[in-house]
Amino acid sequence: MAEALSGFPEWLPEEELFQRKLVDLVRQQFELHGFAPLQTRSIELATDLLGEGGDTDKEIYGVQRLAADPAEGAAKMALHFDLTVPFARYVVERRSALTFPFRRYQVQQAWRGERPQLGRYREFIQADADVIASGEMDVRFDREMVALLRTTLDVLPVPKVRLLVNNRKLLEGFYRGLGIEDIPGTLRIVDKIAKIGPAKVGELLVARGLTADRAEKCVAITSIEIRGEADAQRVLDLGSSHAMLDEGLRELLFVLGASRDAARPDSIVGALSIARGLDYYTGTVVEGVFEEHPKLSAVCSGGRYDNLASGRTKEKLPGVGVSIGITRLMGYCAHLGLLKSERPRRTPAVVYVLVHGEEEREASESVARTLRRRGIPALVSDSSAAYGKQIGKANQLGVPYIWFPARGEGGHEVKDLVSAQQAPADPTTWSPASV
Amino acid sequence: MAEALSGFPEWLPEEELFQRKLVDLVRQQFELHGFAPLQTRSIELATDLLGEGGDTDKEIYGVQRLAADPAEGAAKMALHFDLTVPFARYVVERRSALTFPFRRYQVQQAWRGERPQLGRYREFIQADADVIASGEMDVRFDREMVALLRTTLDVLPVPKVRLLVNNRKLLEGFYRGLGIEDIPGTLRIVDKIAKIGPAKVGELLVARGLTADRAEKCVAITSIEIRGEADAQRVLDLGSSHAMLDEGLRELLFVLGASRDAARPDSIVGALSIARGLDYYTGTVVEGVFEEHPKLSAVCSGGRYDNLASGRTKEKLPGVGVSIGITRLMGYCAHLGLLKSERPRRTPAVVYVLVHGEEEREASESVARTLRRRGIPALVSDSSAAYGKQIGKANQLGVPYIWFPARGEGGHEVKDLVSAQQAPADPTTWSPASV
Repeated sequence: MAEALSGFPEWLPEEELFQRKLVDLVRQQFELHGFAPLQTRSIELATDLLGEGGDTDKEIYGVQRLAADPAEGAAKMALHFDLTVPFARYVVERRSALTFPFRRYQVQQAWRGERPQLGRYREFIQADADVIASGEMDVRFDREMVALLRTTLDVLPVPKVRLLVNNRKLLEGFYRGLGIEDIPGTLRIVDKIAKIGPAKVGELLVARGLTADRAEKCVAITSIEIRGEADAQRVLDLGSSHAMLDEGLRELLFVLGASRDAARPDSIVGALSIARGLDYYTGTVVEGVFEEHPKLSAVCSGGRYDNLASGRTKEKLPGVGVSIGITRLMGYCAHLGLLKSERPRRTPAVVYVLVHGEEEREASESVARTLRRRGIPALVSDSSAAYGKQIGKANQLGVPYIWFPARGEGGHEVKDLVSAQQAPADPTTWSPASV
Repeated sequence: MAEALSGFPEWLPEEELFQRKLVDLVRQQFELHGFAPLQTRSIELATDLLGEGGDTDKEIYGVQRLAADPAEGAAKMALHFDLTVPFARYVVERRSALTFPFRRYQVQQAWRGERPQLGRYREFIQADADVIASGEMDVRFDREMVALLRTTLDVLPVPKVRLLVNNRKLLEGFYRGLGIEDIPGTLRIVDKIAKIGPAKVGELLVARGLTADRAEKCVAITSIEIRGEADAQRVLDLGSSHAMLDEGLRELLFVLGASRDAARPDSIVGALSIARGLDYYTGTVVEGVFEEHPKLSAVCSGGRYDNLASGRTKEKLPGVGVSIGITRLMGYCAHLGLLKSERPRRTPAVVYVLVHGEEEREASESVARTLRRRGIPALVSDSSAAYGKQIGKANQLGVPYIWFPARGEGGHEVKDLVSAQQAPADPTTWSPASV
């Protein structure tokens, strides 16, 4: 991956084939669960993306015609920085035409003008699934979405991911029970714990006005992992007490029930360190990290948002969603050397049909057409040079089989380029062993 | 389709399912023909998109961080206006890592700040397939791409498309043979013939300095349709003579050979009116129009470009490609009322599993999991209200089957909501009749 514009990744064909596989597997799971495909426009009104104060930490890209009159002033349109905010806008606009609860998935680019680094891009593809209800929305939906994320990750050819789940109400209730009133400020500091460590978080909390005892408890709770009811007692033992804490804890334990059907125990864990920054979440929050590479940032995330539509409509439209960072997964897999192969596939073609000579090209084309009609991707050799040269090209492209079209007395033959086995074959019946 | 931002279409779930089908069918054909998937970044350096004089007729959108210092001046980055220019840039940058001839397909958005109207959008999805060679590229590739376009269109659930093929060399040679030197100026006027008619084109040509006789011949050639060698004589009868005309005619006749394997005769026609505006094409040009709606503009296009990489490298990298306007197809199908259905599907789910009561929800979830593992998309009812209400929701979503989970002595049953037939079923073996 070489980049002329930093932060705008482009892949080689062999890497793109891997990316397509990731996206197709994700889409397949989302569709199996009844989520409808959707694309929203890439461009929003800038005012819809900016925070209430007109500013944001998302580093938004404005968009304006190059031919625009400079007197038009600043860009009024902007590229979306995630898929959730546009989706909420879409739902409010179309709510009379939608059936609620509305489940959709969306695989699209998003853009943020942040400084590029490993796992952080200025243009990146996200695969999101969300459900939005009209009126009330049970915590059952939160569990459904965590289970969907779990099932989807389990079919991807990437390193094992552990899902870390928390609940905003649990943290907020815990803080309130301790008498802390500056909830966003406290969350923002606690959210840095993975980066700066517990000691520094404690210091910052005290600097912000918390007593040493309260700061210590805010740090202590982040180290708690919850795998069952018994662990919940460890939270209560810290001495905070608040109705919202109880509700958050109850919701968290319920959502963790998604691990019931998970293939691996321990693949969904309550982790009270997870806060998901300043995002719009109001209850469940989740993120997923590579189990064996804990220093790499989250490859997926999600949570419950009750108020994304408020301000646009009086109707209550709570939602919960998950998001898989396709480009980040690609970046990490490339970084970990997982996209390399001894014989990289550079084409979807399964069969490379050789050409005996230009005057016999039509015979080769005919074989390819027959294979394609049967759903087998086939390429006809672009050259009619010596077989060795043609086979060399097939190897370069990583095509698994070459086809020798029938000629004179001889029939068709197929050669498996990996096992080097060659056998007679009929284009109307032959199938690849596996691809 | 309602639009808050004019020219940025967004679809309803039932329409999106149709769009996904279009895109998936196109991708499938492109992959069957051995074209590798690719995505290039959405953003290019503005200088790479602008013409040599720094201007363009493409109405390009510039991109700049909203937080950028105004002193940075005009946007240096811009959204691409098609997929061919970025692809050519990609190929030049990566040429040492690619295997030539390089075949790729790309389904992505592009952006143009033009005035929106039926079939013209500011954000639109294109599905492109191109092959780029290193060195020389035989006209055989042009025929391959026209055949690919033909095959792909034939599998799409859209109105019948006729492919109109021409060759830039034929037109240029014809003009030169008549003694006309201003080729681009002449082409630009002739290209308007579908919009303004032959009489007006003749007038404009004369106004530009052509003699009445030459102008008349330039108009006359546009009415010629070529279906075989015999029609070629009609071109020569117009009295122009030039080596480039002969070459263009020879290439055109060869490319029309793609109709050999086409399902419908007359679905690929030589049409000497086709010029493809000021695009980068140098030989074959093609566009496709709905046979029964000839007033709607082209839904696909393509052609041969020999010089897109020049200026970046001394290496010769000629290419030929085709492009299907997915958003335009959607817009026209919506316009023609083809996206309406009496029972629109609003979800990929094939089965809607009813819930007898909240305490029995797990039994329904279990049925859904079993079906999904077998590749059958399933939704579990969000409510456990009376069956009638649950079935009403299934109908609203357009799901074809409802599932009554086993209860007490009774076994599982499935009801086809269209035929209203109900029968016992086993989640481990049942399959939908058709979806």
